[in-house]
Amino acid sequence: MSLAARTYVLLLHHPVYNREGRVVTTAVTNLDIHDIARSSRTYGLGGYFVVTPVELQRKLVLDVIAHWQRDFAEAVEPRRQALELVRVAPSLAAAVEQISRAHDEPPLLAATAAQPAADTVDWRRWRELSAAQTRPVGLVFGTGWGLTEEVFERAEIRLAPIWGRTDYNHLSVRSAVAVALDRLFGG
Amino acid sequence: MSLAARTYVLLLHHPVYNREGRVVTTAVTNLDIHDIARSSRTYGLGGYFVVTPVELQRKLVLDVIAHWQRDFAEAVEPRRQALELVRVAPSLAAAVEQISRAHDEPPLLAATAAQPAADTVDWRRWRELSAAQTRPVGLVFGTGWGLTEEVFERAEIRLAPIWGRTDYNHLSVRSAVAVALDRLFGG
Repeated sequence: MSLAARTYVLLLHHPVYNREGRVVTTAVTNLDIHDIARSSRTYGLGGYFVVTPVELQRKLVLDVIAHWQRDFAEAVEPRRQALELVRVAPSLAAAVEQISRAHDEPPLLAATAAQPAADTVDWRRWRELSAAQTRPVGLVFGTGWGLTEEVFERAEIRLAPIWGRTDYNHLSVRSAVAVALDRLFGG
Repeated sequence: MSLAARTYVLLLHHPVYNREGRVVTTAVTNLDIHDIARSSRTYGLGGYFVVTPVELQRKLVLDVIAHWQRDFAEAVEPRRQALELVRVAPSLAAAVEQISRAHDEPPLLAATAAQPAADTVDWRRWRELSAAQTRPVGLVFGTGWGLTEEVFERAEIRLAPIWGRTDYNHLSVRSAVAVALDRLFGG
C-alpha cells in the first residue's frame, strides 16, 4: 500500500488554543470539510478525519456528506468523490483507534505547528521517515490558534513549520494542508 | 528585486466558465480574500489582485480591508499584514496596467488550469523561466469552473495542472494558489 493511501489528515477542533492561549473547541466550518477533502483526494490519501467532541457538529459533517451523496448530477461527482474520504471522530484517540483497526497497527502521528520549536522534523526528512516504514500515518493539524502541548506530547513527530522565504507563516489551515500534501506527494 | 516580490496573484471572477461551460462572473468570497492574501504574504509576493467587473464587489473587498485596518489589536496584526497586499481591478487588462505602472514594464502573464492542454509549461520549468528574466510576473487563477480561452490567449504562458499522483485534480482555488506559491517559492 502506497504511503499516500495509508496517510490520513486529522483536523482537530479540540484541544486547540484560541488567540488568548486558552484551550478551546472551535466550530467546524463547511469550507474546511470541502477544501481539505478535495486536497486529500487529489493527493490520494486514505482518509480525512474531522475531529470534534461536539456530537451535533459531527452530525453536521455527516449531513453535509449525505447531502452531496444524494445529488447524482455529473457536475458534483468530484465533490462526492472527495467527501467519500471524510470521517468523523470525537477525539484524537478515537481517530487513532479507527485507523488502527483499519490497518491492524497504530498510526505514526505527526503534529504540525506554525511556531518553531526544538526537535522538529523538516518535511523532506519526514517524507523519508514515513516512507521507510509500513505503518499508517496521521498528519495532525489544528484549527484556531493551533494544537496544544498535549497533542505534541501524544504525537511521535513534531513537523517543522511551513516557511515561504519570509518570517510570516500564517497560512490558513486549508492552505497549510494543501502545501503539506504537495510537499509529501506532489508533482 | 526578488522574483517573489515582483510576482502577483490575479484571481479572476470574470471571464470564467460556470459548470455548464458558459462564461460568467462569479461572486467574490470573503475567504478567498483572506486565504489567498495570507498565502501571498507567506511567500513574499508583490501583491494579490481580486479582479471583478462588478463595482459593488470591488467595494466589498476594499471594505473588508478597511475593516481590518481599523482593528489595531495585536492578534489581528497578521491578518492586517496579509490584507495590505490586496488590490482590486475591474479587469485583467486593468490589473496588468497597474502592475506595469508600478514596475515600468508589463508583467509576464502565466495562466493556470486544472485541465491538461498542449504547450503547457511545468512548474519547475516555469520557475526557471520567470527567474531568468526581470519583468514582473502575474499568476492568473480562475474562480468557478476555470479561466476562459480568451485569458489563455492573452497570457504568454499556460501552466501545467497541479497533479498529486492521482487522476483527480479538483483542488479549491485557495489550495491551488497555496500549492503553486510553495512550488515556486517554498522551503
